[in-house]
Amino acid sequence: MKFLIFTVVTVHLLTVVSGKAIFKDDISQETFQKIKEEIASYGDIAKAIIDLAVYGKSQNRSYDRLGLLVDTVGPRLSGSKNLENAIQIMYQNLQQNGLENVHLEPVKIPHWERGEESAMMLVPRVHKMAILGLGSSIGTPPEGIMAEALVVTSFDELRRKAPEARGKIVVYNQPYISYPVTVQYRVRGAVEAAKVGAVASLIRSVASFSIYSPHTGFQEYQDGVPKIPTACITVEDAEMIARMASRGNRIVIHLKMDAKNYPDTSSFNTVAEITGSKYPEQVVLVSGHLDSWDVGQGAMDDGGGAFISWEALSLIKDLGLRPKRTVRLVLWTAEEQGGIGASQYFQLHKVNSSNYSLVMESDSGTFLPTGIQFSGSEKARAIMKEVMSLLKPLNITQVFSGTEGTDINFWIQAGVPGASLCDDLSTYFAFHHSHGDTMTVMDPKKMNIAAAVWAVVSYVVADMEEMLPRT
Amino acid sequence: MKFLIFTVVTVHLLTVVSGKAIFKDDISQETFQKIKEEIASYGDIAKAIIDLAVYGKSQNRSYDRLGLLVDTVGPRLSGSKNLENAIQIMYQNLQQNGLENVHLEPVKIPHWERGEESAMMLVPRVHKMAILGLGSSIGTPPEGIMAEALVVTSFDELRRKAPEARGKIVVYNQPYISYPVTVQYRVRGAVEAAKVGAVASLIRSVASFSIYSPHTGFQEYQDGVPKIPTACITVEDAEMIARMASRGNRIVIHLKMDAKNYPDTSSFNTVAEITGSKYPEQVVLVSGHLDSWDVGQGAMDDGGGAFISWEALSLIKDLGLRPKRTVRLVLWTAEEQGGIGASQYFQLHKVNSSNYSLVMESDSGTFLPTGIQFSGSEKARAIMKEVMSLLKPLNITQVFSGTEGTDINFWIQAGVPGASLCDDLSTYFAFHHSHGDTMTVMDPKKMNIAAAVWAVVSYVVADMEEMLPRT
Repeated sequence: MKFLIFTVVTVHLLTVVSGKAIFKDDISQETFQKIKEEIASYGDIAKAIIDLAVYGKSQNRSYDRLGLLVDTVGPRLSGSKNLENAIQIMYQNLQQNGLENVHLEPVKIPHWERGEESAMMLVPRVHKMAILGLGSSIGTPPEGIMAEALVVTSFDELRRKAPEARGKIVVYNQPYISYPVTVQYRVRGAVEAAKVGAVASLIRSVASFSIYSPHTGFQEYQDGVPKIPTACITVEDAEMIARMASRGNRIVIHLKMDAKNYPDTSSFNTVAEITGSKYPEQVVLVSGHLDSWDVGQGAMDDGGGAFISWEALSLIKDLGLRPKRTVRLVLWTAEEQGGIGASQYFQLHKVNSSNYSLVMESDSGTFLPTGIQFSGSEKARAIMKEVMSLLKPLNITQVFSGTEGTDINFWIQAGVPGASLCDDLSTYFAFHHSHGDTMTVMDPKKMNIAAAVWAVVSYVVADMEEMLPRT
Repeated sequence: MKFLIFTVVTVHLLTVVSGKAIFKDDISQETFQKIKEEIASYGDIAKAIIDLAVYGKSQNRSYDRLGLLVDTVGPRLSGSKNLENAIQIMYQNLQQNGLENVHLEPVKIPHWERGEESAMMLVPRVHKMAILGLGSSIGTPPEGIMAEALVVTSFDELRRKAPEARGKIVVYNQPYISYPVTVQYRVRGAVEAAKVGAVASLIRSVASFSIYSPHTGFQEYQDGVPKIPTACITVEDAEMIARMASRGNRIVIHLKMDAKNYPDTSSFNTVAEITGSKYPEQVVLVSGHLDSWDVGQGAMDDGGGAFISWEALSLIKDLGLRPKRTVRLVLWTAEEQGGIGASQYFQLHKVNSSNYSLVMESDSGTFLPTGIQFSGSEKARAIMKEVMSLLKPLNITQVFSGTEGTDINFWIQAGVPGASLCDDLSTYFAFHHSHGDTMTVMDPKKMNIAAAVWAVVSYVVADMEEMLPRT
């Protein structure tokens, strides 16, 4: 997950507050009653999917498949051999699973490598700091950059201290408010520091909990602003440097980063289908991204999302189901570099956007699901609530508002209904983009449940007689 | 904290189950009533201590003092310059605080250095593993040790697989049950592996929660068993290696450790007092250890314990109190190497053990206290319950059984009543002996409360007319 904005609670409240009698204005009670009955008729199928995924012979399969991939390949950075290995393995996996129309769609993706990197505090005491350079950052000169630190807790404070910033390494010790709020420091920290003449920026990791854990992620340079090297440091070191500064200590840091940006390289979105029986050209798209950062195993972000998406198709196939519409699995490439694979997919396929009934993305964990986030017309939302009611056996029936997954936004903005998985995020940002994103944080039982949700939603929406209505 | 055994709950239950009418047999109701009244008369003083520590001008002082020390000095490994710097700074601090009889008592302590260390998985894929060599471990030859891994989850499994172990690196993937149970793998892992012919051992870190965090700690060689290099790996890597092994993968690891054991070196226990007004030769001893491991800042283990112990004396002094007995602060050296400073202190002072009314140790965190653990006679326990009732304003009044702090066990075994601080340990073993043991995990408000408990208990027991009764 790159920039996912969590507007679940606020937008959901707004929806409730502004709640009106949705259907009376839009669809006749009679029509809606028919849709309700149609959806209710999927009760046995939903139960069969749940039984198979959660209690049956398919349980733990998505976890086991994911473990095998990430243990074998390791992390899967955009532009890396690991990512291309993973794509080739997934191509084989999807074919061996007997899915249809398995193919790779070429995408040009960024190629950045961190290389060796280190940060050493020299003054007031020698202390080796854990760092992770940020995606797209330039490196330092080979001898590194040695400079005094200027500590700030906000962009406002940086602007107030602008006269002191020239030639310094800006250290951001911003508090963790929430991911979408706080991630701005990781994304724009280097640019804002460069604007006031800094030579590098070190940013407190955007993390809800830390055991001296640096977290990487994407950052963006800006045309006309000098590019300076930028990395995340641990919460612990950021706080220590801030304490030192508050005591009047002069702080000197020696930063070395071999990071390099290479020309764009070839990669692929990985696609597989269960082709629709009646409207094969119409699509319900389920997705997660196969790339990750280059630390940990990318098991959580977004191995889990990719593998419950695959699992959804596997479960449908295991039960011998074939929906009227095509259920298409897409495993995006280079999401972490700004949704590159998804963007190119949209450019290629948007001409057929009227054939997409629903685009689904799982990219904020596959912990215990609470429901789905949904973007679409009020009519479609009411239908989705009925679909989610099929998941009563799992007690996961909520439909929140405000989906904004990096990889499905293009479709949502084009008017296609979008859904993303909502789950328990209480530990997500402890592991996100860190060495700790490994199979250890994954729970097979929770993945089973997430896959069941994913399979029921995708199958039922793909099999209903009508596509989801749009505005 | 090295080997603290948590017997709080079980032993406490035993006490309750076997509970008899404690006092009727031992002290007359009349005598006990007088003691109750004497203790109750300290209500105003206890309230003054609490007010000063928690709400008054001394609040956050122990946190600020600790932050200054550990930010300035860094971690304080036995035998290191950092530890000796810290001791000299504390000597100055205690003098500047106006405490009495500030002095250093010489101790010979172990000197082990980890040096550079690395572990690289070569097969089935290249993967750099985070490790922390274990205290007292020998190093590898300069070229390292390259060997196949043998994964086990228990000593029993190691014995069953003994014929396969020769020449291998034993990887322990023992589950985390509890610290005292699971730490046996860290302490005895190398010896047990060496007994079956292994060339090195890598042990899953003893941790309740991990973000790819290796945890160090002490290990013990055994006479007659070959010494092999030993280090902890992360929970994540231990689990991954176990998954690989369960799939039949051959695993090859290249381990390099420059660890060296040097001759014992000079250090000190740091001592300061508030001398008793009536029985100056009689002592209530409050303590924590000043040494730490060589990672993180040793802020939690045991900076917090050392600094609330100092704070107890500072609070008593701030209020112009002088108890009848001496309150003595001792900051132990080389606790992590097996309670070395405390052991030598006991050897030197045990001749006067009849003058020690109570020995107190804080070495399992200074998070929100729940009460104290107490070891001593039933009479003394009943008195301690009355003392703890003075902490009702903080709602921290419990007296648990079964104190076993590394540094006060000698005294307890000699019949001296002992008390240690009990607090919320829910995150303790996420940070323990890791890079994450820093000021970030410390909470000034919780330290204030812990210091208030410590000051009330030490002052009241030192000021009561009688010493605590023994068996």
